[in-house]
Amino acid sequence: MSLAPEIASKLKRDAAGLICAVIQQYDTGEVLMVGWMNDDALDLTLREGRVVFWSRSRQSLWRKGDTSGHAQWVKSLWLDCDADAVLVKVDQVGLACHTGARTCFEVGGDLGAEVGYREDGQKDG
Amino acid sequence: MSLAPEIASKLKRDAAGLICAVIQQYDTGEVLMVGWMNDDALDLTLREGRVVFWSRSRQSLWRKGDTSGHAQWVKSLWLDCDADAVLVKVDQVGLACHTGARTCFEVGGDLGAEVGYREDGQKDG
Repeated sequence: MSLAPEIASKLKRDAAGLICAVIQQYDTGEVLMVGWMNDDALDLTLREGRVVFWSRSRQSLWRKGDTSGHAQWVKSLWLDCDADAVLVKVDQVGLACHTGARTCFEVGGDLGAEVGYREDGQKDG
Repeated sequence: MSLAPEIASKLKRDAAGLICAVIQQYDTGEVLMVGWMNDDALDLTLREGRVVFWSRSRQSLWRKGDTSGHAQWVKSLWLDCDADAVLVKVDQVGLACHTGARTCFEVGGDLGAEVGYREDGQKDG
């Protein structure tokens, strides 16, 4: 099996043949991590119900949780408008980050941005 | 002004000098879009309280909302563990996607992944 042609033909891959994958806990909305997928990783993720990445450091497919036990069970997978990123809603077992944190963004931490406030005082969404 | 050296020295930029920026509505948890930032875009985003991207198609800085009115007001900005992605929690004015949708992932749509179920029946997080 390989990635369905109707999906493969849409993707806008980077120079390394990858798209960006944002991983979000499906019920709490936490953004857990960002990883990368080539066509095979996306195909496996769509078919197996488990998230599979392309590891840029190891240059190999990486089924999240096979070593750590920290699997990401797929709930839904969405392509973005310009087809260079996917959003994967998952049920994360344990910790998403290899450093031992729940999310990768807890580790790099808050960079202390200035907080901005909308000028109209309204709320959309 | 330019990006603080203690941040600049950490970043792992891609071949084009960019990091990935995941934009999330701060209160609902919706993932709105993925964009790209160079050092200047990240610096401006941290200092101005509004999200600034690097537009790969136009090869220029792009302060979200200057043309459309659909600004992204920054609530917090988090670096990930390997320093190649940031998570920006924002208050989105109007529509995040240039196609006129609330999020870019509504546009590419649901790719119909198989749903996976954790084997332990537990819940983490």
